[in-house]
Amino acid sequence: MNQWREQMQAYIAFIENKLDEYVPAQTAFPPVIFESMRYSLLSGGKRLRPMLVLAACEAVGGEQADAVPFACAMEMIHTYSLIHDDLPAMDNDDYRRGRLTNHKVFGEDIAILAGDALFHQAMEIMANMCAEYPTEQNTKAMQKIIHGAGVHGMLIGQVVDVYMEGKPLDEETLSYIHRNKTAGLIRASLEAGAVLGGADEATVERFAQAGEKIGLAFQILDDILDETGVFEDLGKPIHSDLKNQKTTYVTLFGVDESKKIAERLSLDAIDIWQTLGEKGIFLEAITNYLVSRKQ
Amino acid sequence: MNQWREQMQAYIAFIENKLDEYVPAQTAFPPVIFESMRYSLLSGGKRLRPMLVLAACEAVGGEQADAVPFACAMEMIHTYSLIHDDLPAMDNDDYRRGRLTNHKVFGEDIAILAGDALFHQAMEIMANMCAEYPTEQNTKAMQKIIHGAGVHGMLIGQVVDVYMEGKPLDEETLSYIHRNKTAGLIRASLEAGAVLGGADEATVERFAQAGEKIGLAFQILDDILDETGVFEDLGKPIHSDLKNQKTTYVTLFGVDESKKIAERLSLDAIDIWQTLGEKGIFLEAITNYLVSRKQ
Repeated sequence: MNQWREQMQAYIAFIENKLDEYVPAQTAFPPVIFESMRYSLLSGGKRLRPMLVLAACEAVGGEQADAVPFACAMEMIHTYSLIHDDLPAMDNDDYRRGRLTNHKVFGEDIAILAGDALFHQAMEIMANMCAEYPTEQNTKAMQKIIHGAGVHGMLIGQVVDVYMEGKPLDEETLSYIHRNKTAGLIRASLEAGAVLGGADEATVERFAQAGEKIGLAFQILDDILDETGVFEDLGKPIHSDLKNQKTTYVTLFGVDESKKIAERLSLDAIDIWQTLGEKGIFLEAITNYLVSRKQ
Repeated sequence: MNQWREQMQAYIAFIENKLDEYVPAQTAFPPVIFESMRYSLLSGGKRLRPMLVLAACEAVGGEQADAVPFACAMEMIHTYSLIHDDLPAMDNDDYRRGRLTNHKVFGEDIAILAGDALFHQAMEIMANMCAEYPTEQNTKAMQKIIHGAGVHGMLIGQVVDVYMEGKPLDEETLSYIHRNKTAGLIRASLEAGAVLGGADEATVERFAQAGEKIGLAFQILDDILDETGVFEDLGKPIHSDLKNQKTTYVTLFGVDESKKIAERLSLDAIDIWQTLGEKGIFLEAITNYLVSRKQ
């Protein structure tokens, strides 16, 4: 396993370097928006989504370099969504990744705009790629990413989450939220990566299915860690779901059963990776990491 | 002039029909986000930006139909920016186009998400066009629109506007804000329309210059109308700049001199339209309307 953890660390370092390049510090007036964007974008994190874009591209025989702009755009979209989710009018969170949330540091107005700006920047990176190289791969990858982030994916999950706040949820609604809010981008990361690597439609569809499973497993682990984790590992307060009376997989099924569900989902995804032979091993390692992580 | 006002009305009706189709009412759970998006998107407005996309495309000999998705995306981006600008953490406005602002009706959380969702929807429409027809025209038009809306256009203008709130501005800073916040999308509308109509680079560049002039003139007229207009025409409180101690062209130069500046800018734009002969007449009419409007 260590070999793969090292490879994951190398990917993370590479991605963080690229993000730093894509959103450079500015001395020109007004630097505050770039400081705010960089504060959240470069504050660590698992870099799961961009790692999946790159790994999926390579797993189908593509070149990593072709996927880098899209991987970075994906992480910017993820970061924008976190900044907006943390706002006082939304989840009103004070901590994220062990640091104060964006609006606690820069104020609500700049935080809203920094979220918007990261979204704009993500779109600009992808649009520039498509304008410079208007290939089917590039335009389809952009389409997958935007689709997974929008009103048929991440965003609608957040809407239902906000809308149902304080109300008890049944499994169907909870799973709807998770499958969109969390799995939307994870599925899109794998789809986009596969498209960029030149995969055929059937393969892209299998990657989408694996993404759906991994996304749901990932969120269930989050629910479990909110119950069993520690602040130092997570970088945010534990028991926040309990405090906010949020329905989670843990409140519905308990910790042990939730772990089993997450493991079964990850095994389903691994079944798909194993059809790729050697080339699927890194995706399998990432998937295994996700259900064994402590943060 | 009446003939052109009728043509503008016909374009507006056509655009509103298309916007209604692109963001349909939903009965599926949760309808609230679509209600909120539609509340702001379909609440009237001058539809200047989409009209310019269509008119620019036709002025260079293109087909209107090719520009419609991009025109609608442009209006969605404009509407998203208005919803976010009106938020309590930003301009804290209660009225827009004669109705309560989005967050006054739907709450701040849904208003933030409705803004985000309109931005997502705009990107999805353009990405779908580019994925289905990956032509140089489509990908370049998307690029122009995203560029004009982002950290080199509209968004940076809003950042500086928020950042400088309550501070007196010199002409250079005020013009920087207007040239980005307002002219960013107007310039991009004309550029994108020209690109979609198949114009060469030199023509696109002249359209960009005209857009810069029109955008600045448009905003100066807004400053003037805030001073001289009436609530019933404007649909929002007058003298809000005075109340908020905002520096505007009117506070810097007075009403009469500001009118002269706006007129000179519009004449510069009209010079460019007149190089197009017959085909430039509708763009000239729109430009004339902008500096004579009462709302």
